[in-house]
Amino acid sequence: MSNDGNPAGRVAIALLHHPVYDKNRQVVNTAVTNLDIHDIARASRTFGLCRYFIVTPVAEQQALVERIRRHWLGGWGAGYNPRRKEALELLHLSSTLEDAVEEMTGMFAVPPLLAVTGARGRSNTVDTKKLRIELETSKRPLLLMFGTGWGLTEEVFDRADFVLEPIRGNSEYNHLSVRSAVSIYLDRLFGN
Amino acid sequence: MSNDGNPAGRVAIALLHHPVYDKNRQVVNTAVTNLDIHDIARASRTFGLCRYFIVTPVAEQQALVERIRRHWLGGWGAGYNPRRKEALELLHLSSTLEDAVEEMTGMFAVPPLLAVTGARGRSNTVDTKKLRIELETSKRPLLLMFGTGWGLTEEVFDRADFVLEPIRGNSEYNHLSVRSAVSIYLDRLFGN
Repeated sequence: MSNDGNPAGRVAIALLHHPVYDKNRQVVNTAVTNLDIHDIARASRTFGLCRYFIVTPVAEQQALVERIRRHWLGGWGAGYNPRRKEALELLHLSSTLEDAVEEMTGMFAVPPLLAVTGARGRSNTVDTKKLRIELETSKRPLLLMFGTGWGLTEEVFDRADFVLEPIRGNSEYNHLSVRSAVSIYLDRLFGN
Repeated sequence: MSNDGNPAGRVAIALLHHPVYDKNRQVVNTAVTNLDIHDIARASRTFGLCRYFIVTPVAEQQALVERIRRHWLGGWGAGYNPRRKEALELLHLSSTLEDAVEEMTGMFAVPPLLAVTGARGRSNTVDTKKLRIELETSKRPLLLMFGTGWGLTEEVFDRADFVLEPIRGNSEYNHLSVRSAVSIYLDRLFGN
């Protein structure tokens, strides 16, 4: 696959359901949320991304995602709403982050840059402008990692090449849903 | 209430469950979606808005919204997640768009500007930059109206002072969820 043209075409999202923290900072598997599947697939398609990985090692959760995917890709849903089909075609299941990284590496013949969101004060913190420039100059693919639950573990942060600045609004409050955060980051990175 | 300072402080969202079209362009009442309540309240709080109106004339739907609101404002949820409480404090129920307009008029002693999203080719179409300028120069409050189902009726479009341009990504596909669209519009209007 070519690295030329629209840089969004070599960007993917990974939504991690493990390893993430719960409220008490225990590392857990979270359950998949139906609207995370749909909203993030639709935003990924709108902004021209190449993949949307749902990462969960739990077999029952994988089966649930697969059932939803099949409903909209080939089942009754495909006829009812073909636009949803177009979005969900981007969806891929991965058991681990490593699997998603390997799939990206296979697609582009070079390992993806890894970016996480949400923390502050790290030496590799960047804003979306800087990340866009890195993406254009490096010519490498990019995997944008988002966490569920109470956020990605330190281990995932340590692996990331870049930490994206949190989204600031007009208040001290910045507790957006992951669906909102993904949408805003994609617009800042790739919107007109 | 003062009109000075942060213009987001005199902006509210109205999420309309009526009058909206269904797939066959019949005017219907849609059902309230739980994550519309949460995601849009959290985005509204993050960007400093004054209100988030959920508009539905259906008593059972109003009761459902009220139950969810009470759970997070005063029930078990308020202790479990105080950040959610802060967001849902913005939530107000209205039976009709007119009720929301009247409440805004009462709060600011002047009727709000009305803006809708999603259509093209109208003479009053603006981008977010232009709407932001109108908001600052007019000193009036602003009600940003979003539709559910297959979109707001012509009647609502005809009432609007402004029609916001649809969000374009990097593709022909622009079928974002209302949760994603609200988040991106608020970031474009009021994000740093």
